Amino acid sequence: MNVSVIGLGAMGAAIAARLLDTGHDTAVWNRSAHRAEPLIAKGATGGTLAEVIAASDVLIVTLLRYNSVEEVLAPVFGELAGRTVVNLTSGTPNEARALAALLASHGVRYVDGGMMAVPEMIGRPGASILYSGDEAAFEEARPVLAELASAEFFPGDAGRASLVDLSLLAGMYGMFGGIAQATAMAERAGLPPTVFAPRLTAWLQAMATQAAGHAVVAEKRDYTTDTQSVSFNLGALEAIMEAARDEGVGDGFLAPVRDALAARAAAGRGEDVFASVIEAVRAQDAA
Amino acid sequence: MNVSVIGLGAMGAAIAARLLDTGHDTAVWNRSAHRAEPLIAKGATGGTLAEVIAASDVLIVTLLRYNSVEEVLAPVFGELAGRTVVNLTSGTPNEARALAALLASHGVRYVDGGMMAVPEMIGRPGASILYSGDEAAFEEARPVLAELASAEFFPGDAGRASLVDLSLLAGMYGMFGGIAQATAMAERAGLPPTVFAPRLTAWLQAMATQAAGHAVVAEKRDYTTDTQSVSFNLGALEAIMEAARDEGVGDGFLAPVRDALAARAAAGRGEDVFASVIEAVRAQDAA
Repeated sequence: MNVSVIGLGAMGAAIAARLLDTGHDTAVWNRSAHRAEPLIAKGATGGTLAEVIAASDVLIVTLLRYNSVEEVLAPVFGELAGRTVVNLTSGTPNEARALAALLASHGVRYVDGGMMAVPEMIGRPGASILYSGDEAAFEEARPVLAELASAEFFPGDAGRASLVDLSLLAGMYGMFGGIAQATAMAERAGLPPTVFAPRLTAWLQAMATQAAGHAVVAEKRDYTTDTQSVSFNLGALEAIMEAARDEGVGDGFLAPVRDALAARAAAGRGEDVFASVIEAVRAQDAA
Repeated sequence: MNVSVIGLGAMGAAIAARLLDTGHDTAVWNRSAHRAEPLIAKGATGGTLAEVIAASDVLIVTLLRYNSVEEVLAPVFGELAGRTVVNLTSGTPNEARALAALLASHGVRYVDGGMMAVPEMIGRPGASILYSGDEAAFEEARPVLAELASAEFFPGDAGRASLVDLSLLAGMYGMFGGIAQATAMAERAGLPPTVFAPRLTAWLQAMATQAAGHAVVAEKRDYTTDTQSVSFNLGALEAIMEAARDEGVGDGFLAPVRDALAARAAAGRGEDVFASVIEAVRAQDAA
Protein backbone atom coordinates (compact mmCIF):
# COMPACT_ATOMS: atom_id res chain seq x y z
CA MET A 1 0.00 0.00 0.00
CA ASN A 2 1.42 3.36 -1.09
CA VAL A 3 0.96 6.13 1.43
CA SER A 4 1.62 9.82 1.44
CA VAL A 5 1.79 12.44 4.15
CA ILE A 6 0.36 15.86 3.32
CA GLY A 7 1.53 18.58 5.70
CA LEU A 8 4.92 18.23 7.35
CA GLY A 9 4.70 20.14 10.59
CA ALA A 10 6.01 18.44 13.73
CA MET A 11 3.27 15.77 13.61
CA GLY A 12 3.37 15.15 9.84
CA ALA A 13 7.16 14.90 9.85
CA ALA A 14 7.07 12.42 12.77
CA ILE A 15 4.49 10.31 10.94
CA ALA A 16 6.42 10.30 7.65
CA ALA A 17 9.65 9.40 9.45
CA ARG A 18 7.90 6.52 11.22
CA LEU A 19 6.44 5.20 7.96
CA LEU A 20 9.87 5.30 6.33
CA ASP A 21 11.47 3.59 9.35
CA THR A 22 8.92 0.78 9.13
CA GLY A 23 9.58 0.20 5.41
CA HIS A 24 6.54 1.82 3.77
CA ASP A 25 6.69 3.46 0.34
CA THR A 26 6.02 7.02 1.44
CA ALA A 27 5.45 10.21 -0.55
CA VAL A 28 5.50 13.59 1.17
CA TRP A 29 4.20 17.06 0.37
CA ASN A 30 4.23 20.38 2.18
CA ARG A 31 3.21 23.84 1.03
CA SER A 32 6.73 25.11 1.90
CA ALA A 33 8.76 22.50 0.03
CA HIS A 34 11.88 22.83 2.21
CA ARG A 35 10.19 20.86 4.99
CA ALA A 36 10.06 17.83 2.67
CA GLU A 37 13.81 17.78 2.06
CA PRO A 38 15.01 15.89 5.18
CA LEU A 39 12.35 13.23 4.54
CA ILE A 40 13.29 12.89 0.87
CA ALA A 41 16.89 12.47 2.04
CA LYS A 42 15.62 9.57 4.21
CA GLY A 43 13.98 7.89 1.19
CA ALA A 44 10.58 9.55 0.78
CA THR A 45 9.24 10.48 -2.65
CA GLY A 46 8.61 14.16 -3.36
CA GLY A 47 6.76 15.95 -6.14
CA THR A 48 3.79 18.19 -6.80
CA LEU A 49 0.65 17.56 -4.81
CA ALA A 50 -1.01 15.97 -7.87
CA GLU A 51 2.03 13.68 -8.37
CA VAL A 52 2.07 12.66 -4.73
CA ILE A 53 -1.66 11.88 -4.81
CA ALA A 54 -1.31 9.87 -8.01
CA ALA A 55 1.30 7.69 -6.24
CA SER A 56 -0.86 7.06 -3.13
CA ASP A 57 -3.66 4.72 -2.10
CA VAL A 58 -3.90 6.45 1.27
CA LEU A 59 -3.20 10.10 2.08
CA ILE A 60 -2.53 11.03 5.69
CA VAL A 61 -3.29 14.72 6.13
CA THR A 62 -1.86 16.67 9.07
CA LEU A 63 -2.39 20.37 8.56
CA LEU A 64 -2.85 23.09 11.12
CA ARG A 65 -6.57 23.71 10.67
CA TYR A 66 -9.51 22.25 8.78
CA ASN A 67 -9.84 25.25 6.49
CA SER A 68 -6.26 24.59 5.36
CA VAL A 69 -7.28 21.03 4.49
CA GLU A 70 -10.11 22.20 2.26
CA GLU A 71 -7.93 24.92 0.72
CA VAL A 72 -5.10 22.50 -0.08
CA LEU A 73 -7.27 19.66 -1.38
CA ALA A 74 -9.92 21.63 -3.35
CA PRO A 75 -7.75 21.99 -6.48
CA VAL A 76 -7.08 18.23 -6.57
CA PHE A 77 -10.51 16.75 -5.79
CA GLY A 78 -10.46 15.09 -9.24
CA GLU A 79 -7.21 13.25 -8.51
CA LEU A 80 -8.46 12.21 -5.04
CA ALA A 81 -11.59 10.40 -6.24
CA GLY A 82 -11.50 6.73 -5.22
CA ARG A 83 -8.59 7.24 -2.82
CA THR A 84 -8.64 7.38 0.99
CA VAL A 85 -7.97 10.55 2.94
CA VAL A 86 -7.08 9.97 6.62
CA ASN A 87 -7.35 13.40 8.18
CA LEU A 88 -5.46 13.83 11.45
CA THR A 89 -5.80 17.62 11.52
CA SER A 90 -7.15 18.90 14.87
CA GLY A 91 -10.64 20.32 14.79
CA THR A 92 -14.17 19.90 16.04
CA PRO A 93 -16.60 17.04 15.31
CA ASN A 94 -18.68 19.39 13.15
CA GLU A 95 -15.64 20.27 11.05
CA ALA A 96 -14.99 16.55 10.56
CA ARG A 97 -18.61 15.93 9.54
CA ALA A 98 -18.60 18.83 7.06
CA LEU A 99 -15.31 17.74 5.46
CA ALA A 100 -16.50 14.12 5.27
CA ALA A 101 -19.63 15.25 3.40
CA LEU A 102 -17.66 17.49 1.04
CA LEU A 103 -15.12 14.79 0.18
CA ALA A 104 -17.82 12.12 -0.19
CA SER A 105 -19.52 14.36 -2.75
CA HIS A 106 -16.28 14.12 -4.78
CA GLY A 107 -16.03 10.35 -4.43
CA VAL A 108 -13.23 10.48 -1.84
CA ARG A 109 -13.19 7.89 0.99
CA TYR A 110 -12.85 9.84 4.23
CA VAL A 111 -11.47 8.71 7.60
CA ASP A 112 -11.15 11.20 10.46
CA GLY A 113 -8.63 10.68 13.26
CA GLY A 114 -8.48 12.12 16.78
CA MET A 115 -4.91 12.15 18.05
CA MET A 116 -4.13 11.06 21.60
CA ALA A 117 -0.42 11.68 21.15
CA VAL A 118 2.19 14.37 20.72
CA PRO A 119 4.67 14.02 17.83
CA GLU A 120 7.39 12.46 20.00
CA MET A 121 5.01 9.61 20.88
CA ILE A 122 4.38 8.45 17.29
CA GLY A 123 5.28 4.76 16.96
CA ARG A 124 5.77 4.38 20.71
CA PRO A 125 3.68 2.62 23.35
CA GLY A 126 0.97 4.85 24.80
CA ALA A 127 0.21 6.70 21.56
CA SER A 128 -3.37 6.24 20.44
CA ILE A 129 -5.44 7.52 17.52
CA LEU A 130 -9.24 7.22 17.44
CA TYR A 131 -10.88 6.95 14.00
CA SER A 132 -14.35 7.47 12.52
CA GLY A 133 -15.81 7.76 9.02
CA ASP A 134 -15.56 5.21 6.20
CA GLU A 135 -15.03 1.91 8.03
CA ALA A 136 -14.03 -0.15 4.96
CA ALA A 137 -11.43 2.46 4.03
CA PHE A 138 -10.15 2.45 7.63
CA GLU A 139 -9.81 -1.34 7.65
CA GLU A 140 -7.81 -1.26 4.39
CA ALA A 141 -5.52 1.45 5.80
CA ARG A 142 -5.24 -0.15 9.24
CA PRO A 143 -1.87 -1.88 8.66
CA VAL A 144 -0.31 1.49 7.87
CA LEU A 145 -2.15 3.38 10.62
CA ALA A 146 -1.19 0.77 13.22
CA GLU A 147 2.47 1.74 12.65
CA LEU A 148 1.73 5.19 14.08
CA ALA A 149 -0.23 4.45 17.24
CA SER A 150 -2.85 2.06 18.54
CA ALA A 151 -5.75 2.45 16.08
CA GLU A 152 -9.35 2.18 17.25
CA PHE A 153 -12.44 2.72 15.07
CA PHE A 154 -15.68 4.32 16.31
CA PRO A 155 -18.57 3.48 13.99
CA GLY A 156 -21.12 6.19 13.31
CA ASP A 157 -20.71 9.67 11.92
CA ALA A 158 -17.30 11.01 10.92
CA GLY A 159 -17.17 13.37 13.93
CA ARG A 160 -17.51 10.70 16.58
CA ALA A 161 -13.82 9.90 17.10
CA SER A 162 -13.08 13.61 17.32
CA LEU A 163 -15.77 14.04 19.97
CA VAL A 164 -14.38 11.17 22.07
CA ASP A 165 -10.89 12.62 21.61
CA LEU A 166 -12.01 16.08 22.72
CA SER A 167 -13.90 14.59 25.68
CA LEU A 168 -10.71 12.97 26.93
CA LEU A 169 -8.76 16.17 26.34
CA ALA A 170 -11.43 18.08 28.30
CA GLY A 171 -10.77 15.77 31.24
CA MET A 172 -7.03 16.35 30.87
CA TYR A 173 -7.33 20.14 30.82
CA GLY A 174 -9.55 20.07 33.91
CA MET A 175 -6.85 18.03 35.63
CA PHE A 176 -4.08 20.33 34.36
CA GLY A 177 -5.95 23.30 35.83
CA GLY A 178 -6.09 21.39 39.12
CA ILE A 179 -2.36 20.66 38.88
CA ALA A 180 -1.54 24.36 38.45
CA GLN A 181 -3.81 25.30 41.37
CA ALA A 182 -2.37 22.56 43.62
CA THR A 183 1.22 23.38 42.72
CA ALA A 184 0.85 27.09 43.42
CA MET A 185 -0.76 26.35 46.81
CA ALA A 186 1.80 23.74 47.84
CA GLU A 187 4.54 26.23 47.00
CA ARG A 188 3.10 28.44 49.76
CA ALA A 189 3.41 25.46 52.12
CA GLY A 190 7.13 25.44 51.35
CA LEU A 191 7.03 22.48 48.97
CA PRO A 192 8.88 23.30 45.73
CA PRO A 193 6.96 22.10 42.64
CA THR A 194 9.38 19.26 41.86
CA VAL A 195 9.18 18.02 45.47
CA PHE A 196 5.38 18.19 45.44
CA ALA A 197 4.84 16.67 41.95
CA PRO A 198 5.37 12.95 42.78
CA ARG A 199 2.91 13.22 45.67
CA LEU A 200 0.41 15.03 43.45
CA THR A 201 0.72 12.51 40.61
CA ALA A 202 0.20 9.54 42.95
CA TRP A 203 -2.81 11.23 44.55
CA LEU A 204 -4.42 12.14 41.22
CA GLN A 205 -3.83 8.62 39.87
CA ALA A 206 -5.54 7.17 42.94
CA MET A 207 -8.44 9.63 42.76
CA ALA A 208 -8.87 9.12 38.98
CA THR A 209 -10.38 5.74 39.84
CA GLN A 210 -13.32 7.67 41.35
CA ALA A 211 -14.47 8.26 37.76
CA ALA A 212 -16.02 4.77 37.88
CA GLY A 213 -18.28 5.69 40.81
CA HIS A 214 -19.12 9.07 39.30
CA ALA A 215 -20.08 7.28 36.08
CA VAL A 216 -22.54 4.96 37.85
CA VAL A 217 -24.18 8.01 39.41
CA ALA A 218 -24.23 9.91 36.12
CA GLU A 219 -25.70 6.98 34.23
CA LYS A 220 -28.44 6.01 36.74
CA ARG A 221 -29.18 9.65 37.57
CA ASP A 222 -29.76 8.41 41.12
CA TYR A 223 -28.35 11.23 43.22
CA THR A 224 -29.19 9.98 46.71
CA THR A 225 -26.24 9.50 49.07
CA ASP A 226 -25.35 9.41 52.73
CA THR A 227 -21.76 10.59 52.23
CA GLN A 228 -19.93 13.06 50.01
CA SER A 229 -22.90 15.33 49.48
CA VAL A 230 -23.00 18.47 47.37
CA SER A 231 -23.10 20.54 50.60
CA PHE A 232 -20.12 18.72 52.11
CA ASN A 233 -18.03 19.21 48.97
CA LEU A 234 -19.17 22.82 48.63
CA GLY A 235 -17.82 23.44 52.15
CA ALA A 236 -14.54 21.76 51.23
CA LEU A 237 -14.17 23.83 48.04
CA GLU A 238 -14.93 27.03 49.92
CA ALA A 239 -12.24 26.15 52.48
CA ILE A 240 -9.73 25.42 49.71
CA MET A 241 -10.48 28.68 47.92
CA GLU A 242 -10.34 30.65 51.17
CA ALA A 243 -6.98 29.05 51.94
CA ALA A 244 -5.71 29.96 48.46
CA ARG A 245 -6.70 33.60 48.97
CA ASP A 246 -5.26 33.61 52.52
CA GLU A 247 -1.97 32.37 51.08
CA GLY A 248 -1.96 35.01 48.35
CA VAL A 249 -2.64 32.82 45.33
CA GLY A 250 -5.55 32.80 42.90
CA ASP A 251 -8.63 30.63 43.34
CA GLY A 252 -10.32 31.12 39.97
CA PHE A 253 -9.53 27.70 38.51
CA LEU A 254 -11.82 26.13 41.13
CA ALA A 255 -14.64 28.67 40.79
CA PRO A 256 -16.81 26.89 38.17
CA VAL A 257 -17.08 23.66 40.19
CA ARG A 258 -17.73 25.66 43.37
CA ASP A 259 -20.38 27.72 41.53
CA ALA A 260 -22.03 24.59 40.13
CA LEU A 261 -22.23 23.04 43.62
CA ALA A 262 -23.55 26.30 45.10
CA ALA A 263 -26.25 26.47 42.42
CA ARG A 264 -27.29 22.87 43.09
CA ALA A 265 -27.41 23.55 46.85
CA ALA A 266 -29.42 26.74 46.29
CA ALA A 267 -31.86 24.70 44.19
CA GLY A 268 -32.47 22.41 47.17
CA ARG A 269 -30.15 19.63 45.93
CA GLY A 270 -27.52 20.02 48.70
CA GLU A 271 -28.08 16.48 49.98
CA ASP A 272 -27.47 14.96 46.53
CA VAL A 273 -24.20 13.16 45.85
CA PHE A 274 -21.21 15.20 44.60
CA ALA A 275 -21.14 13.51 41.19
CA SER A 276 -24.55 15.04 40.44
CA VAL A 277 -22.45 18.08 39.47
CA ILE A 278 -22.47 16.58 35.95
CA GLU A 279 -25.96 18.10 35.67
CA ALA A 280 -24.30 21.51 35.54
CA VAL A 281 -22.63 20.43 32.29
CA ARG A 282 -25.64 18.55 30.94
CA ALA A 283 -27.93 21.46 31.86
CA GLN A 284 -27.19 23.14 28.53
CA ASP A 285 -29.57 20.53 27.10
CA ALA A 286 -32.31 23.01 27.85
CA ALA A 287 -30.51 25.96 26.24
CA MET B 1 -1.45 5.53 76.11
CA ASN B 2 -5.06 6.46 76.84
CA VAL B 3 -6.86 8.07 73.93
CA SER B 4 -10.25 9.68 73.49
CA VAL B 5 -12.29 10.67 70.48
CA ILE B 6 -14.26 13.91 70.76
CA GLY B 7 -16.99 14.22 68.13
CA LEU B 8 -18.60 11.06 66.80
CA GLY B 9 -19.80 11.92 63.32
CA ALA B 10 -19.00 9.46 60.53
CA MET B 11 -15.26 10.15 60.80
CA GLY B 12 -15.06 10.20 64.62
CA ALA B 13 -17.07 6.99 64.91
CA ALA B 14 -14.84 5.25 62.34
CA ILE B 15 -11.73 6.37 64.24
CA ALA B 16 -13.06 5.25 67.64
CA ALA B 17 -14.11 1.87 66.21
CA ARG B 18 -10.66 1.40 64.70
CA LEU B 19 -8.94 2.24 68.00
CA LEU B 20 -11.14 -0.25 69.86
CA ASP B 21 -10.49 -2.91 67.19
CA THR B 22 -6.74 -2.45 67.61
CA GLY B 23 -6.89 -2.81 71.39
CA HIS B 24 -6.51 0.80 72.58
CA ASP B 25 -8.15 2.09 75.77
CA THR B 26 -10.55 4.53 74.17
CA ALA B 27 -12.92 7.06 75.70
CA VAL B 28 -15.57 8.77 73.58
CA TRP B 29 -17.68 11.90 73.81
CA ASN B 30 -20.26 13.54 71.60
CA ARG B 31 -22.53 16.52 72.21
CA SER B 32 -25.55 14.29 71.46
CA ALA B 33 -24.75 11.42 73.78
CA HIS B 34 -26.70 8.79 71.82
CA ARG B 35 -23.94 8.64 69.21
CA ALA B 36 -21.55 7.31 71.88
CA GLU B 37 -23.75 4.34 72.76
CA PRO B 38 -22.76 1.86 70.04
CA LEU B 39 -19.09 2.56 70.78
CA ILE B 40 -19.58 2.11 74.53
CA ALA B 41 -21.28 -1.19 73.68
CA LYS B 42 -18.06 -2.13 71.82
CA GLY B 43 -15.94 -1.37 74.92
CA ALA B 44 -15.32 2.39 74.84
CA THR B 45 -15.48 4.47 78.03
CA GLY B 46 -18.13 7.19 78.21
CA GLY B 47 -18.66 10.08 80.61
CA THR B 48 -18.78 13.85 80.75
CA LEU B 49 -16.31 15.77 78.62
CA ALA B 50 -14.23 16.58 81.73
CA GLU B 51 -14.21 12.90 82.75
CA VAL B 52 -13.19 11.78 79.28
CA ILE B 53 -10.38 14.35 79.16
CA ALA B 54 -9.16 13.34 82.63
CA ALA B 55 -8.82 9.75 81.35
CA SER B 56 -6.84 10.70 78.19
CA ASP B 57 -3.25 11.47 77.27
CA VAL B 58 -4.31 12.19 73.67
CA LEU B 59 -7.61 13.63 72.47
CA ILE B 60 -8.53 13.14 68.83
CA VAL B 61 -11.03 15.82 67.85
CA THR B 62 -13.26 15.40 64.80
CA LEU B 63 -15.97 18.02 64.78
CA LEU B 64 -17.74 19.61 61.85
CA ARG B 65 -16.08 23.02 61.95
CA TYR B 66 -13.29 24.84 63.79
CA ASN B 67 -15.67 27.12 65.65
CA SER B 68 -17.31 24.00 67.13
CA VAL B 69 -13.89 22.91 68.38
CA GLU B 70 -13.31 26.17 70.20
CA GLU B 71 -16.88 26.18 71.54
CA VAL B 72 -16.63 22.62 72.87
CA LEU B 73 -13.15 22.91 74.37
CA ALA B 74 -13.30 26.44 75.87
CA PRO B 75 -15.06 25.30 79.10
CA VAL B 76 -12.42 22.61 79.71
CA PHE B 77 -9.16 24.42 78.88
CA GLY B 78 -8.07 23.88 82.52
CA GLU B 79 -8.45 20.10 82.25
CA LEU B 80 -6.67 20.06 78.85
CA ALA B 81 -3.44 21.69 80.06
CA GLY B 82 -0.47 19.35 79.53
CA ARG B 83 -2.44 16.98 77.30
CA THR B 84 -2.28 16.59 73.50
CA VAL B 85 -5.12 17.62 71.21
CA VAL B 86 -4.93 16.08 67.71
CA ASN B 87 -7.46 18.06 65.70
CA LEU B 88 -8.71 16.35 62.53
CA THR B 89 -11.58 18.78 61.96
CA SER B 90 -11.59 20.16 58.40
CA GLY B 91 -10.67 23.81 58.05
CA THR B 92 -8.20 26.25 56.61
CA PRO B 93 -4.52 26.67 57.52
CA ASN B 94 -5.33 29.99 59.20
CA GLU B 95 -7.96 28.32 61.38
CA ALA B 96 -5.37 25.71 62.40
CA ARG B 97 -2.82 28.41 63.22
CA ALA B 98 -5.31 30.41 65.31
CA LEU B 99 -6.46 27.35 67.27
CA ALA B 100 -2.85 26.25 67.84
CA ALA B 101 -2.04 29.66 69.31
CA LEU B 102 -5.14 29.69 71.50
CA LEU B 103 -4.51 26.20 72.89
CA ALA B 104 -0.80 26.87 73.40
CA SER B 105 -1.77 29.89 75.52
CA HIS B 106 -3.60 27.41 77.79
CA GLY B 107 -0.69 24.98 77.94
CA VAL B 108 -2.26 22.45 75.57
CA ARG B 109 -0.02 20.56 73.11
CA TYR B 110 -1.59 20.96 69.66
CA VAL B 111 -1.28 18.75 66.58
CA ASP B 112 -3.31 19.55 63.46
CA GLY B 113 -4.17 16.86 60.94
CA GLY B 114 -5.20 17.10 57.28
CA MET B 115 -7.25 14.07 56.27
CA MET B 116 -6.61 12.32 52.97
CA ALA B 117 -9.33 9.75 53.60
CA VAL B 118 -13.06 9.26 53.87
CA PRO B 119 -14.42 7.44 56.96
CA GLU B 120 -14.61 4.04 55.19
CA MET B 121 -10.85 4.22 54.51
CA ILE B 122 -9.79 4.55 58.17
CA GLY B 123 -7.37 1.74 59.05
CA ARG B 124 -7.10 0.61 55.43
CA PRO B 125 -4.26 0.93 52.90
CA GLY B 126 -4.40 4.20 50.97
CA ALA B 127 -5.64 6.32 53.88
CA SER B 128 -3.23 9.10 54.79
CA ILE B 129 -3.23 11.90 57.35
CA LEU B 130 -0.76 14.79 57.22
CA TYR B 131 0.19 16.42 60.52
CA SER B 132 1.71 19.70 61.68
CA GLY B 133 2.11 21.51 64.99
CA ASP B 134 3.86 20.21 68.13
CA GLU B 135 6.33 17.66 66.79
CA ALA B 136 7.20 16.06 70.18
CA ALA B 137 3.50 15.58 70.95
CA PHE B 138 3.00 14.09 67.48
CA GLU B 139 5.86 11.63 67.96
CA GLU B 140 4.41 10.49 71.30
CA ALA B 141 0.97 10.01 69.73
CA ARG B 142 2.32 8.41 66.56
CA PRO B 143 1.69 4.76 67.62
CA VAL B 144 -1.99 5.57 68.07
CA LEU B 145 -2.27 7.77 64.97
CA ALA B 146 -0.55 5.15 62.81
CA GLU B 147 -3.52 2.83 63.49
CA LEU B 148 -5.79 5.22 61.59
CA ALA B 149 -3.86 5.95 58.41
CA SER B 150 -0.31 6.52 57.25
CA ALA B 151 0.94 9.40 59.41
CA GLU B 152 3.33 12.01 58.03
CA PHE B 153 4.59 15.09 59.89
CA PHE B 154 5.28 18.46 58.24
CA PRO B 155 7.49 20.60 60.46
CA GLY B 156 6.77 24.31 60.61
CA ASP B 157 3.64 26.18 61.56
CA ALA B 158 0.49 24.31 62.59
CA GLY B 159 -1.30 25.19 59.32
CA ARG B 160 1.22 23.56 57.02
CA ALA B 161 -0.28 20.05 56.86
CA SER B 162 -3.69 21.57 56.22
CA LEU B 163 -2.29 23.64 53.35
CA VAL B 164 -0.65 20.60 51.75
CA ASP B 165 -3.89 18.67 52.24
CA LEU B 166 -5.97 21.43 50.63
CA SER B 167 -3.45 21.71 47.76
CA LEU B 168 -3.95 18.04 46.93
CA LEU B 169 -7.72 18.40 47.25
CA ALA B 170 -7.56 21.39 44.89
CA GLY B 171 -5.89 19.16 42.31
CA MET B 172 -8.56 16.53 42.84
CA TYR B 173 -11.46 18.97 42.40
CA GLY B 174 -9.89 20.31 39.20
CA MET B 175 -9.71 16.74 37.93
CA PHE B 176 -13.28 15.99 39.08
CA GLY B 177 -14.50 19.02 37.11
CA GLY B 178 -12.67 17.63 34.10
CA ILE B 179 -14.27 14.23 34.68
CA ALA B 180 -17.77 15.75 34.68
CA GLN B 181 -17.01 17.75 31.52
CA ALA B 182 -15.49 14.74 29.75
CA THR B 183 -18.31 12.41 30.76
CA ALA B 184 -21.06 14.77 29.56
CA MET B 185 -19.29 15.21 26.20
CA ALA B 186 -18.62 11.50 25.68
CA GLU B 187 -22.29 10.83 26.36
CA ARG B 188 -23.05 12.92 23.27
CA ALA B 189 -20.68 10.66 21.33
CA GLY B 190 -22.89 7.74 22.34
CA LEU B 191 -20.60 6.41 25.07
CA PRO B 192 -22.56 5.80 28.30
CA PRO B 193 -20.67 7.05 31.38
CA THR B 194 -19.85 3.55 32.67
CA VAL B 195 -18.48 2.56 29.24
CA PHE B 196 -16.39 5.72 29.00
CA ALA B 197 -15.09 5.72 32.61
CA PRO B 198 -12.35 3.05 32.32
CA ARG B 199 -10.92 4.83 29.26
CA LEU B 200 -11.06 8.17 31.07
CA THR B 201 -9.40 6.83 34.22
CA ALA B 202 -6.56 5.23 32.24
CA TRP B 203 -6.04 8.45 30.25
CA LEU B 204 -6.03 10.68 33.33
CA GLN B 205 -3.65 8.34 35.15
CA ALA B 206 -1.27 8.49 32.17
CA MET B 207 -1.55 12.28 31.86
CA ALA B 208 -1.15 12.80 35.64
CA THR B 209 2.53 11.97 35.11
CA GLN B 210 2.79 15.26 33.18
CA ALA B 211 2.77 16.98 36.58
CA ALA B 212 6.49 16.20 36.80
CA GLY B 213 7.26 18.19 33.65
CA HIS B 214 4.93 21.01 34.65
CA ALA B 215 6.75 21.15 38.00
CA VAL B 216 10.17 21.58 36.38
CA VAL B 217 8.78 24.47 34.33
CA ALA B 218 7.06 26.02 37.36
CA GLU B 219 10.17 25.75 39.49
CA LYS B 220 12.71 27.07 36.97
CA ARG B 221 10.27 29.66 35.62
CA ASP B 222 11.83 28.97 32.24
CA TYR B 223 8.87 29.18 29.90
CA THR B 224 10.60 28.70 26.55
CA THR B 225 9.41 25.75 24.47
CA ASP B 226 9.21 24.50 20.92
CA THR B 227 6.11 22.35 21.51
CA GLN B 228 2.89 22.59 23.52
CA SER B 229 2.78 26.36 23.54
CA VAL B 230 0.16 28.52 25.21
CA SER B 231 -1.23 29.38 21.74
CA PHE B 232 -1.42 25.74 20.66
CA ASN B 233 -3.25 24.74 23.84
CA LEU B 234 -5.51 27.78 23.65
CA GLY B 235 -6.57 26.62 20.18
CA ALA B 236 -7.20 23.11 21.52
CA LEU B 237 -9.30 24.41 24.43
CA GLU B 238 -11.31 26.63 22.10
CA ALA B 239 -12.02 23.63 19.86
CA ILE B 240 -13.09 21.52 22.86
CA MET B 241 -15.39 24.25 24.16
CA GLU B 242 -16.85 24.87 20.69
CA ALA B 243 -17.48 21.13 20.36
CA ALA B 244 -19.20 21.07 23.77
CA ARG B 245 -21.51 23.91 22.73
CA ASP B 246 -22.13 22.29 19.31
CA GLU B 247 -23.17 19.10 21.12
CA GLY B 248 -25.47 20.99 23.48
CA VAL B 249 -23.50 20.63 26.70
CA GLY B 250 -21.93 23.28 28.95
CA ASP B 251 -18.34 24.47 28.56
CA GLY B 252 -17.96 26.53 31.73
CA PHE B 253 -15.76 24.12 33.67
CA LEU B 254 -12.98 24.73 31.12
CA ALA B 255 -13.41 28.50 30.95
CA PRO B 256 -10.87 29.56 33.62
CA VAL B 257 -7.98 27.66 32.03
CA ARG B 258 -8.99 28.94 28.56
CA ASP B 259 -9.22 32.49 29.96
CA ALA B 260 -5.83 32.20 31.64
CA LEU B 261 -4.22 31.02 28.38
CA ALA B 262 -5.98 33.77 26.41
CA ALA B 263 -4.70 36.39 28.87
CA ARG B 264 -1.14 35.05 28.60
CA ALA B 265 -1.38 35.06 24.78
CA ALA B 266 -2.80 38.61 24.81
CA ALA B 267 0.15 39.66 26.99
CA GLY B 268 2.54 38.47 24.29
CA ARG B 269 3.35 35.14 26.00
CA GLY B 270 1.67 32.89 23.41
CA GLU B 271 4.94 31.15 22.55
CA ASP B 272 5.57 30.21 26.20
CA VAL B 273 5.05 26.63 27.31
CA PHE B 274 1.57 25.56 28.47
CA ALA B 275 2.66 24.95 32.08
CA SER B 276 3.39 28.69 32.40
CA VAL B 277 -0.37 28.89 33.09
CA ILE B 278 0.62 28.48 36.76
CA GLU B 279 1.44 32.20 36.63
CA ALA B 280 -2.30 32.85 36.42
CA VAL B 281 -2.62 31.29 39.89
CA ARG B 282 0.57 32.80 41.26
CA ALA B 283 -0.38 36.20 39.84
CA GLN B 284 -2.40 37.00 42.96
CA ASP B 285 1.02 37.58 44.55
CA ALA B 286 0.69 41.15 43.40
CA ALA B 287 -2.85 41.60 44.73
